Amino acid sequence: MSRMGSDAHVPIEVFGYAAKDTTGHMSPFKFTRKPAGAEDVTLKVHYCGICHSDLHQLRGDWGNSKYPMVPGHEIVGTVTSVGSAVSKFKVGDTVGVGCMVYSCHNCDSCDKGLEQYCDKMVWTYNDVLPDGTATQGGYSTIMVANEKFVVHIPENLPKDAAAPLLCAGITIWSPMLYFGMNVKGAKFGVVGLGGLGHMAVKFGKAFGMHVTVFSTSPSKEKEARELLGADDFVVSRDEEAMNAKAKSLDFIINTISVQHSLNPYLSTLKSNGKMCLVGIPEKELSVLPVQLVAGRKMVAGSLIGGMKETEEMLEFCGKNNITCLVETLPVAECNTAMERLANNDVKYRFVLDLDSVQQ
Amino acid sequence: MSRMGSDAHVPIEVFGYAAKDTTGHMSPFKFTRKPAGAEDVTLKVHYCGICHSDLHQLRGDWGNSKYPMVPGHEIVGTVTSVGSAVSKFKVGDTVGVGCMVYSCHNCDSCDKGLEQYCDKMVWTYNDVLPDGTATQGGYSTIMVANEKFVVHIPENLPKDAAAPLLCAGITIWSPMLYFGMNVKGAKFGVVGLGGLGHMAVKFGKAFGMHVTVFSTSPSKEKEARELLGADDFVVSRDEEAMNAKAKSLDFIINTISVQHSLNPYLSTLKSNGKMCLVGIPEKELSVLPVQLVAGRKMVAGSLIGGMKETEEMLEFCGKNNITCLVETLPVAECNTAMERLANNDVKYRFVLDLDSVQQ
Repeated sequence: MSRMGSDAHVPIEVFGYAAKDTTGHMSPFKFTRKPAGAEDVTLKVHYCGICHSDLHQLRGDWGNSKYPMVPGHEIVGTVTSVGSAVSKFKVGDTVGVGCMVYSCHNCDSCDKGLEQYCDKMVWTYNDVLPDGTATQGGYSTIMVANEKFVVHIPENLPKDAAAPLLCAGITIWSPMLYFGMNVKGAKFGVVGLGGLGHMAVKFGKAFGMHVTVFSTSPSKEKEARELLGADDFVVSRDEEAMNAKAKSLDFIINTISVQHSLNPYLSTLKSNGKMCLVGIPEKELSVLPVQLVAGRKMVAGSLIGGMKETEEMLEFCGKNNITCLVETLPVAECNTAMERLANNDVKYRFVLDLDSVQQ
Repeated sequence: MSRMGSDAHVPIEVFGYAAKDTTGHMSPFKFTRKPAGAEDVTLKVHYCGICHSDLHQLRGDWGNSKYPMVPGHEIVGTVTSVGSAVSKFKVGDTVGVGCMVYSCHNCDSCDKGLEQYCDKMVWTYNDVLPDGTATQGGYSTIMVANEKFVVHIPENLPKDAAAPLLCAGITIWSPMLYFGMNVKGAKFGVVGLGGLGHMAVKFGKAFGMHVTVFSTSPSKEKEARELLGADDFVVSRDEEAMNAKAKSLDFIINTISVQHSLNPYLSTLKSNGKMCLVGIPEKELSVLPVQLVAGRKMVAGSLIGGMKETEEMLEFCGKNNITCLVETLPVAECNTAMERLANNDVKYRFVLDLDSVQQ
């Protein structure tokens, strides 16, 4: 709990929940984190959001899962100690750790503050640091990370509802800013209304845009409009409703994570319209070239966001009181949460409460 | 041949070559153009380039062909009369007419100088003007067009080699400028080395970029390097050579007009890389989402270019002595040219000589 302590080269005992195999079932797990170094920040984890990718990784869907695995990359906590070289944080600060814990800081991407595109980037869990240490995530009581990958969380935001900003939030924010999808009065489409999509609606409204939600679920209309403030709602399987939106939108954020055709959505864009994919369906998507050519449209992709962008987003969220809509559960209920997530039974993000752990 | 004459409301007798049906075979054809109006420019056509789309339209490939059809939208000629309201041109000027002859001038696209995306845009041939007149193209001795769709051709450029700038040239120029693919020192890829591709190489070099040509034909390497100045050449079917180009390019212009996978080319882009399609394959192309997401890449499309852009391109070409590599034939050989084009036996654009017509 002190500056000195953090350079003490003592492994840190941590309690968390880990899966041991591709059943993905998590059970209580005691492990050690590497001794905190001079540039490291140690935090007591309060909350960790559940990202849909946690489910994929737990179950080995992407073929690269390493067990035991402690998932979690939407981490909010309080700084308990800082290394001797740490300059940005002090004990007691409310901070967050997102999807990354390392990058080379010696390449074009790192120079531009886009660590997520660094070839040597290391994920917060299910990955390996250059020194060989396996990374473990935030479904655990204590996190240690280099200060370059730690951010301040505005004190006015509720800590649990802020946690998913570290992944869901920045994944939406980064392309909206980079591709200029933040024009007051513009027509903005959000495809898919889950953890990512609901943040796109919130940012879209905060930027003063007219927001249309596209969803396969008519049942989501009421909440989209009344709770999130969407201006319009289109059932994407309703061809007539889709046609009525032809050439009406300036921008689209597409959060769908399963295979689909981009053409119906491209049809809703005006000339010079832009669509950005933030989901990663594993199979190929189809694009009719004339949909892009006749109207100079584009389809892009974007992956989470850089650390500088994350800081800017959090500052914006603090000023505008933007957080995620979450359901917070004790971490002991992590398996229940995963099952409900697999059944799309979540509005809009689960957050695990690590303070619920009796130690 | 006078200002007065152009407002005389006399139909204009024209000689050209027209197809009568989907055989696409063209034969001599006498027809009248509507009387030139106050805003119209009348020109003696000297040369007209042959675009690959002419072949499609002649043969009814796109299902919208109207016969008799006089193709041609890469037209260079000399002004022989101007309407009373014409302000930009005078008799004797060397001018060009490209792909369009009408747009509404009362919409967002027109306001931005992007007439090609106007919903009411009328093509230079195989289309119908608002007054009901069928449009006929430049495989003919005389052209009449509203001055808004006429451009000055720099006098220092050879007229035949300048003609394809009106379509092939602007189709490449417009996206290169719009998407910022004109950065000195950047790595620029050109996919496909035909009429469009060779212009992309020329513009790429003029902008000071390092140009890599991707082609299925190893036989094109020597010309690509020696004649066009390409810095590198990759046989796109050579997987090893493609892999060696991974994450090396900033921009790609993709001119392929048949179905293909975008993934091998997306792999050659660096993070934040951009690819623009200018060909229009009729079938859907496949895109693996991770190719876009992991590196924030984009795929866009672009259709010809606006009139203001065309003027800017022609000024640039005049200053930098840029024209197309052409093979010029008497218009009477238009059918031979089409057959050779269908067999890809052209370097890199056929141009028909209308001065060869004995009247």
